[in-house]
Amino acid sequence: MNFSDKAHEECGVLGFYDVDGHSVAHEIYHGLYALQHRGQESCGIATNDDGRIHQVKDKGMVNEVFNETNLGSLVGNIGVGHVRYARSNEPRENAQPLVSRYCKGSLTLAHNGSITNVDSLREHLESNGAIFQSTNDTEVIMHLIAIARTTSHSVEAAALSVMDKLEGAYSMILMSPRKLMGIRDPQGFHPLCIGKKGNSYILASETCALDTMRAEFVRDVEPGEIVLIEGTKLTSIKDKCNKKPSLCVFEYMYFARPDSVIDGVSVYETRINTGKLLAKAAPVQADFVMGVPDSGLNFAQGYAMESGIPYGEGLIRNRYTGRTFIKHTQAERVAAVNIKLNALASAVNGKRIIMVDDSIVRGTTCANIIKMLKDKGAKEVHLRIASPPFLFPCYFGTDIPSKKELIANRYSVEEIRKLVGADSLAYLPVTDVNNIGLRKDFGYCSACFTGKYPIKVKAED
Amino acid sequence: MNFSDKAHEECGVLGFYDVDGHSVAHEIYHGLYALQHRGQESCGIATNDDGRIHQVKDKGMVNEVFNETNLGSLVGNIGVGHVRYARSNEPRENAQPLVSRYCKGSLTLAHNGSITNVDSLREHLESNGAIFQSTNDTEVIMHLIAIARTTSHSVEAAALSVMDKLEGAYSMILMSPRKLMGIRDPQGFHPLCIGKKGNSYILASETCALDTMRAEFVRDVEPGEIVLIEGTKLTSIKDKCNKKPSLCVFEYMYFARPDSVIDGVSVYETRINTGKLLAKAAPVQADFVMGVPDSGLNFAQGYAMESGIPYGEGLIRNRYTGRTFIKHTQAERVAAVNIKLNALASAVNGKRIIMVDDSIVRGTTCANIIKMLKDKGAKEVHLRIASPPFLFPCYFGTDIPSKKELIANRYSVEEIRKLVGADSLAYLPVTDVNNIGLRKDFGYCSACFTGKYPIKVKAED
Amino acid sequence: MNFSDKAHEECGVLGFYDVDGHSVAHEIYHGLYALQHRGQESCGIATNDDGRIHQVKDKGMVNEVFNETNLGSLVGNIGVGHVRYARSNEPRENAQPLVSRYCKGSLTLAHNGSITNVDSLREHLESNGAIFQSTNDTEVIMHLIAIARTTSHSVEAAALSVMDKLEGAYSMILMSPRKLMGIRDPQGFHPLCIGKKGNSYILASETCALDTMRAEFVRDVEPGEIVLIEGTKLTSIKDKCNKKPSLCVFEYMYFARPDSVIDGVSVYETRINTGKLLAKAAPVQADFVMGVPDSGLNFAQGYAMESGIPYGEGLIRNRYTGRTFIKHTQAERVAAVNIKLNALASAVNGKRIIMVDDSIVRGTTCANIIKMLKDKGAKEVHLRIASPPFLFPCYFGTDIPSKKELIANRYSVEEIRKLVGADSLAYLPVTDVNNIGLRKDFGYCSACFTGKYPIKVKAED
Amino acid sequence: MNFSDKAHEECGVLGFYDVDGHSVAHEIYHGLYALQHRGQESCGIATNDDGRIHQVKDKGMVNEVFNETNLGSLVGNIGVGHVRYARSNEPRENAQPLVSRYCKGSLTLAHNGSITNVDSLREHLESNGAIFQSTNDTEVIMHLIAIARTTSHSVEAAALSVMDKLEGAYSMILMSPRKLMGIRDPQGFHPLCIGKKGNSYILASETCALDTMRAEFVRDVEPGEIVLIEGTKLTSIKDKCNKKPSLCVFEYMYFARPDSVIDGVSVYETRINTGKLLAKAAPVQADFVMGVPDSGLNFAQGYAMESGIPYGEGLIRNRYTGRTFIKHTQAERVAAVNIKLNALASAVNGKRIIMVDDSIVRGTTCANIIKMLKDKGAKEVHLRIASPPFLFPCYFGTDIPSKKELIANRYSVEEIRKLVGADSLAYLPVTDVNNIGLRKDFGYCSACFTGKYPIKVKAED
Repeated sequence: MNFSDKAHEECGVLGFYDVDGHSVAHEIYHGLYALQHRGQESCGIATNDDGRIHQVKDKGMVNEVFNETNLGSLVGNIGVGHVRYARSNEPRENAQPLVSRYCKGSLTLAHNGSITNVDSLREHLESNGAIFQSTNDTEVIMHLIAIARTTSHSVEAAALSVMDKLEGAYSMILMSPRKLMGIRDPQGFHPLCIGKKGNSYILASETCALDTMRAEFVRDVEPGEIVLIEGTKLTSIKDKCNKKPSLCVFEYMYFARPDSVIDGVSVYETRINTGKLLAKAAPVQADFVMGVPDSGLNFAQGYAMESGIPYGEGLIRNRYTGRTFIKHTQAERVAAVNIKLNALASAVNGKRIIMVDDSIVRGTTCANIIKMLKDKGAKEVHLRIASPPFLFPCYFGTDIPSKKELIANRYSVEEIRKLVGADSLAYLPVTDVNNIGLRKDFGYCSACFTGKYPIKVKAED
Repeated sequence: MNFSDKAHEECGVLGFYDVDGHSVAHEIYHGLYALQHRGQESCGIATNDDGRIHQVKDKGMVNEVFNETNLGSLVGNIGVGHVRYARSNEPRENAQPLVSRYCKGSLTLAHNGSITNVDSLREHLESNGAIFQSTNDTEVIMHLIAIARTTSHSVEAAALSVMDKLEGAYSMILMSPRKLMGIRDPQGFHPLCIGKKGNSYILASETCALDTMRAEFVRDVEPGEIVLIEGTKLTSIKDKCNKKPSLCVFEYMYFARPDSVIDGVSVYETRINTGKLLAKAAPVQADFVMGVPDSGLNFAQGYAMESGIPYGEGLIRNRYTGRTFIKHTQAERVAAVNIKLNALASAVNGKRIIMVDDSIVRGTTCANIIKMLKDKGAKEVHLRIASPPFLFPCYFGTDIPSKKELIANRYSVEEIRKLVGADSLAYLPVTDVNNIGLRKDFGYCSACFTGKYPIKVKAED
Repeated sequence: MNFSDKAHEECGVLGFYDVDGHSVAHEIYHGLYALQHRGQESCGIATNDDGRIHQVKDKGMVNEVFNETNLGSLVGNIGVGHVRYARSNEPRENAQPLVSRYCKGSLTLAHNGSITNVDSLREHLESNGAIFQSTNDTEVIMHLIAIARTTSHSVEAAALSVMDKLEGAYSMILMSPRKLMGIRDPQGFHPLCIGKKGNSYILASETCALDTMRAEFVRDVEPGEIVLIEGTKLTSIKDKCNKKPSLCVFEYMYFARPDSVIDGVSVYETRINTGKLLAKAAPVQADFVMGVPDSGLNFAQGYAMESGIPYGEGLIRNRYTGRTFIKHTQAERVAAVNIKLNALASAVNGKRIIMVDDSIVRGTTCANIIKMLKDKGAKEVHLRIASPPFLFPCYFGTDIPSKKELIANRYSVEEIRKLVGADSLAYLPVTDVNNIGLRKDFGYCSACFTGKYPIKVKAED
Repeated sequence: MNFSDKAHEECGVLGFYDVDGHSVAHEIYHGLYALQHRGQESCGIATNDDGRIHQVKDKGMVNEVFNETNLGSLVGNIGVGHVRYARSNEPRENAQPLVSRYCKGSLTLAHNGSITNVDSLREHLESNGAIFQSTNDTEVIMHLIAIARTTSHSVEAAALSVMDKLEGAYSMILMSPRKLMGIRDPQGFHPLCIGKKGNSYILASETCALDTMRAEFVRDVEPGEIVLIEGTKLTSIKDKCNKKPSLCVFEYMYFARPDSVIDGVSVYETRINTGKLLAKAAPVQADFVMGVPDSGLNFAQGYAMESGIPYGEGLIRNRYTGRTFIKHTQAERVAAVNIKLNALASAVNGKRIIMVDDSIVRGTTCANIIKMLKDKGAKEVHLRIASPPFLFPCYFGTDIPSKKELIANRYSVEEIRKLVGADSLAYLPVTDVNNIGLRKDFGYCSACFTGKYPIKVKAED
C-alpha cells in the first residue's frame, strides 16, 4: 500500500551514457518507470547533446510529465533522470535533476538522500554571497562542486573534495559536458548500482531499472566510491571507501522493489526471511495468512512457509486509484481506504486471519482495514508487523513523522493492538533485524528502531 | 494483467436515488472507481435535480475525467454513472450516460451489453426519419423508449414494451424525471444488482461497488426484470422473467472483480475452484505455482491448494504504468511488457514453475513473459490456462478478436505451446466449466468455448 | 467593444467543397478566424471523407479549440465550420456543426439564426417519439430534414419541404455524403454568401471570410434560396424566393465586420453614412470626434467627415484581454473596463469631445468610459449613438436583453444622459435608418427599433 | 501590428507595496495586463508574505498563466510582476521574477533591459565558483547583489555598489523581506515610474499600468536613482544620478503604449508630432492617409493633420488572432497576414493612399499589405515610415535583427520601395528625431539610426 501513513523514500536516480551516440531520453524514461515507487511527486530528465543541455521536469508522475513531444525534444546521448518524493506544496523549482552552468560549462545533478549538515553548509555559502533558488540539498551540493572546481583539475577531483564536506546520505549522479559520474556516500545509506547495455553504462538506484531497460547488472557502486564514465571507459575513485557501511535496512523492508538486488542481497529473499522470522517469533493459530497489498505480501508468504498455515488473499486492491482521489467530506476522507481496498467476503467470512504488513506509522489505515475484514465476517485478525516499532526519527532521507507522531512512542504494544482493533499484535523483534539475510561483511543502519545512528546527528528538539 | 491481447468487457453501470435529497455525484464517483475494471476508455455521470439534468462525461478514466469542480456542478439526488470500454478512436459522443429530452421531459440511459439486432432496429428507425448522433446501441434503445412512451402510460411500461424488440445483452439503468430503473435482459448475460444505503437504493453492475459505497447488498436484478425505484419504494416488473438465464461465464473467469458476488456465486470462489479443477486435469511436477498478475492469481492459489505445490510469486507488476505508455520504436513496443512486469530472479532462478493465467487470446504477451522467466533462470515453465480455448466470437458485449485472430482457431495446443515457449500447456477442459461452482438452478453462456449460442445470432462471415 | 452589455449575434457558418480532393480543415480554420466576431463561446469543424465524417468541436475560440493535431485528424475534402455565441453555462452538446447519421448516411448542419416556432415544432416531434440531445434549434431542423427525407427523392428536396415548416431566421449550411448546401430563410434575416477558390465553392456568413481564404466573392445566397454544390456544379433552388426580404439592419450597425459586403452593400460605407447622418441630425461644437473602440470607430469617422470636426483618438484599447478575465471582488468587476480601455490623457485633457458608439444596451460601460475621460480632464463629452434606441426584443437570432432590461424602455433620453454622465446625448433618428445606404430594392428588419416585425412573432410576456 | 518582423522590447516590470496589508496579487495581475505589450512569451508574479515568498511564473500571456486558483495562492502584501519577451525556445527557467534565498533571507528581482558587460561579469562570477540556472542577465545581477550584501550594511547599499559594475540598460524592481526598490540605470535607457494608490506605492515600467490599477502617477524614477519603499516611506538614493540620460527613442516610436507618459513626455504626442514631421518632409498627393494597425495609427493621424489629407481606414485587423496561429504549409505561412489583416475594399478601391507605419525591419509584411491593398483596387500606395532606417544593432534590450538582416543595410531606399511594391517610400529624416517633442533638458539614445552609442559597446562581428 502507498497510503499517507507510510514512511517515504526521498528519490530515485538514473544515468545513461550511450556510446553509440543514440538519444537516451526514451531509455531513461523507461528506467524511471521502474523507479517510480521511490518518488511520485515530481520527475525529470536532462540530456546532454555535446555539452548543450535539454531538460524536462515538473510535478507529476512519469506518465504525467513526459509525452512523445517533450521526450523528442530531449536530444543527447548522455542523460540523467530523477523521480522525487516531496512534502506537499513544495515549489516546482525543487524538481530534479538540477541543471547549472558553471565555470567549465554545464553541470547536472540528481540526488537521493539527505545531507545532515546542509544548514551549516548553506549558511557558510550564503555568508560568501551564494544565492539559492530551491530548498533542495542538491543545490547546496552543486554550489560546493562549482566552487571546488575553481581549484581542482577535474570535475571528479572537485566532487571528491566535496565529499569531505558532506555529512549524511547521498547517492547521486553527476553529469558534466563529457562525463557521467555516480557518487555514493561513505556509509552507503541508499543504493546505487551499475548496469551495462551493449557497451554503454547505466547508473541506477535499483537493479529493477536495469531489468526494465533490458540491461545487465554489473555491480553496486561501493559506499564512498565515485564511478566515472567516459564513453566505454569506467574508472573507479575509491579514496573515500574507508568507512564502515550503514545501508538503510528499510530499503529491504519497504522502499525497494522486491525484484531488486541491493548490495548483493535480494530484497525479495529478505522479505521471505523476515516473514519466516516473524512466524517463529510470534506464532498464532489461524485459518490463513494474508498480506496487506502490496507492502505485506512477501512477508505473508514467508510467514505461511514457516508456519505451514495456508497463504491466501483477503483484500482486493483497486488498481485504478491514482494520486488525485477527491475527498469531499470528512466521512469520505475516512472512506478513502474503502475505495483502495475491499475485503474478500467469501475468503474471510468466519475465518481466523493472520494479517502481515511492513510497518505501522500512525495506525489509522491499519484500523480501517481490520474493521473492513471484521465487517465481512472475519472471526479473528492477528496483526504481524515485519519490522520493529519505529521509535526514532531518520536523518538520512526517509520522511518519517516526528517522534511525537510515531504511534510506538506514545502507546504500548497492547494499547496499539486495542487502537487498531486486532486480536493480537506482534512486531519483528529488533534482534531479528540481523537475521533477515543481510551480509555479515557489511554494515546496516537500523537507527529508526534502535536510536544508534551510524554518524553524529543533531538531536530532535 | 490488462494488456491489449485480453478480451474486453464493454461497460459498468451505476444508479443511486438518495431519498434524503443529498447530492449523489460524489457517491457515484466512488462507486465508479470500483467498476473501473469494466471499462477505462470513457466515463460519465448524469444527475437529476428535480427534472433538470446535469452531466459530465469524457474520454479518460474516473480519476482523469472528474475533479472537485465538475463533481460540484453535478447537483441532484438521483444519478446515473457509467464506465466504458471502447475500441480505439471512438468519438467522444459515444461516452455515456446518454441524456435526452423527450416527450415527458428528460431521459437518461446507461447501458452494458450488446444488442444483437441493433442494425435492423436502427434501419427501421432511420426509415421513419430518426437521426443518430453516436454509434452506440444506447441511442437506439433511447429512441425506442421515446417512441413507445408516446403510446404507453408510463416510462416503465414503455421500457417493458421495448424489451420485446431488443435481442441480446443489456444490463441498463434508466432515469426519468422522478424514477430510477434497472433493466436486465431476459437471458441475464451481464450482472446487475441492487444495494441499499440507509433508505436509499443503489443499482450497480457488481457488488464491489456497493462495498466501496459502504452500502448493503439487497439482491440481484433477475434476468428479464425491471426494477423501479421511486423514493423509498422499490417495485419489480417481472413480465419478461420467463427465459432460461444464460449469464456470461467469462464474468467469473476474467471480467468481474474477485470480491464481487454475481447471481449468488462468489467470483473469488469460482476462481479458486477453477484452479483446483485445473490442477486435477493437468497436473505437473514443479517447485512452485504462480499466477500472471493480476488475472491469474486466484486460479494459481486454487491450483496450489489442490496440488500441494507451494504458491509463490515470480513476477512483479509495476503499479504505476497507466494507459499512456509511449512507445518510440518497434523494439520499445515489444518491450512494453518489460515495463509492466519483471521476473523475480531470486524466486525463479533454477526453478520448475507452473504459471497460471485466465486465457490466451493472441499469445504474444504470454510468450514475452515466459521468455522473461527463462532469462532469469527458470528451468521449466508449465503454462496452465483457467478457461477452455476461445473458439467462437461473442455477440453479447465482449470484445473478442475475430475468429481469424483467435490463436486457438489457427493452431493446435502443441503448436501454441511451442509458440509461447512453454514446457507444457494445458487448458481447463470445457466439461469442467460446469464444475467451477456455478448454480445448478441457473443457466450460463459459454458460447465462446462451445459455439452453442443461447439465442439466435447472425453468423460471422 | 465586446463588453457584456452589447447585443450578441448568434453564429457564423462556413462550408467548403474542394474539387481537387484536398483536405479542407485548414482552409475552414482560416475562414472561421475571420468569422470569430460572430461567436466566441464554442466552435467546430466537421469534414467529410467520402461519406465518413470527422469532427472536432468544443467550447472556446478558434485558436483555443483547434491545434495541429486535431486539424490533422479532420480528413476530407468537404467540410462545414461554425462559431457560436452562447449564453453562459450552455452545455458542450450545443456546439456545432451537428453531425447525425440518418436514413441516407451522414448529415451535418451548421446554423445561424433563430426559429420562432421551434417550441411547437419540437413538441410535435416529441409527441411522435423524437429525442433531443441538445437545446439547439439545429437539432430540431435536423429531425425535420431526416423525416422529410423518408418521403423526398433527395436531401435538397427534403430541405425544401422543411422550409415550409420553419418560421424565423436561418442561414445554414448542410452537408450530405456528396453534397454541400447553403440555405437562407425567405426573409434573409442573416447573411450568407458564395465564394470560389479555383474551381471550388465556399459558403460563408460574411465576405471577410472569403478574403481571408483568398477566395473570390461570387454572389450572396438569395433570401429563400437553396444553393446546391456538387463538385464543380452549383445549382440554385429558388422555390421559396417569393417573400419580401427583411435583412437585419443591425448586421450593418454592429454584427458584421466592416470589410464585409452584405447583399450588395458595404458594411463600412453604411457606417460612414450613418456617422454623417448623425452629424447632421445632432450637431454639436467640439474639439474632436472619437469612437469607442472598435464598435464606434467608423461611425465617428463619418461624423468627422460631415461635421468638419477633426477625428481623433481618446481611448486606447488593450488588445491582450481575452474572455478569461478574472474578477476577484465587486470593485474589480467594475474595474474591468479599466483593463480593457484607458483614456488618452494628452488627447482629451481640456477638450470638448464627441464620443460615438453603435448602441447603448444597459448603459453601465458607457458611464464608466465617460467617467474615465472626465477623470483625465475632458471638459465635455457629447455622446452620439449610431442607432435608434432599442425598444423591442429580437426573435431572429440576436441576444438582446428583455424589454425590462433595455435602458431605453425605462428611461427618457434625458434621464439616460444623466445616468451615463454625458453633456449631451443623441441617437440616430429612426427615420434615418432608411438613409444609411441600404438598397431600395430590398427589405430590412428594424423591428428592435420600431416594433414592426416582418413576420408574426409571439409577444413577450 | 505585432508581426515577427518587428523589433521587440524585452520586458515590463511592476512592483506594489500595500501598506494596509492586503494581498497584492490581483492588483499586480491587473497591472501586468496593461504591460502585456512589452512582452508576451512568459510572465510571473512573486509575493512576499512577511518574508515568505510565493511565486507563479510560466510561459504564456497574463491571461494564460494566471487563474483564480494560482492568484489566490499568491499571498502577501508586497509583490513583483514581470512580462517577458523571449526568443523562441528559451527555457521556462528564464521566466521572471527571479526569486532567491540569500544571506539575509529572500530576494526577488524583475529586470527590463540588457547588461552589455554581462559575459565578463558572469565569467568572473563563475571563476569564483558561481552556478547559473538560467541564461538571464537577472541571475547575474542577483549574484552580484548577494555578494555585495555580505559586506554592505543594507540591501540598498548592496544594490548601489552593484550599479558600479553593471554597464548597459536596467530598469528593475528588487524585493527584500521588508523593502521594495526600483532601480534605473544611470543612462535611463528604459522607463520606470512611481505611482500611488491610497498610501501605497507602485513601481511600473509605464504609466498605463498605473491608470489600469486606478492609481495616481507620482513621478518617474530618475536615471541612476534607487527608490526605496518601506511601508508608507519612500526614500531616494541618487548617488548614481550623474550621467547624461539616454532614454531609448524607440520607446516613443513603437514600444510604449500611446497612453503612457515617459519622462515627462506623452508617447501619443510624440507620435502625432512625428506624423506631422513626416508630412512636411515627404509630402505626396493622395485621397487619404491610413496607418498600419495598430503601430502606424497615431503617426497617420499626425500626417493627416499636417497635410490636410483626410484620415481613413484601409485595413481591418482581426482582433482574435493569438500567438498560436497554426501554419500548415508554406502557402499558409505567407497567408498569415491575410488572417490578421484585411483590406477594406470600399475604402481603398480606386484610391491613392498614404500608408504610415512605425518602421521596416525585414520588409516582408509590408510587401504583403501593399499587395493586399492593390488587389482590392488601390491606385497608388505611398509608404511613409515614422522612423529613420534601422542601420545599427541595439545592445540595450531591444531585439533587432543582426546587421545583415536589416533591410536598410542591404538595400537603398529605392530598392526597398521596389521590394515592398510601394509607389513611393520615405522615412523620417534622422535629423527630425530631435523634433518629435522630446525634452531639451534630457538625453536620448538613437544609436540604432545613427550608430552613436551613448556608452561603449562591443562591436558586432
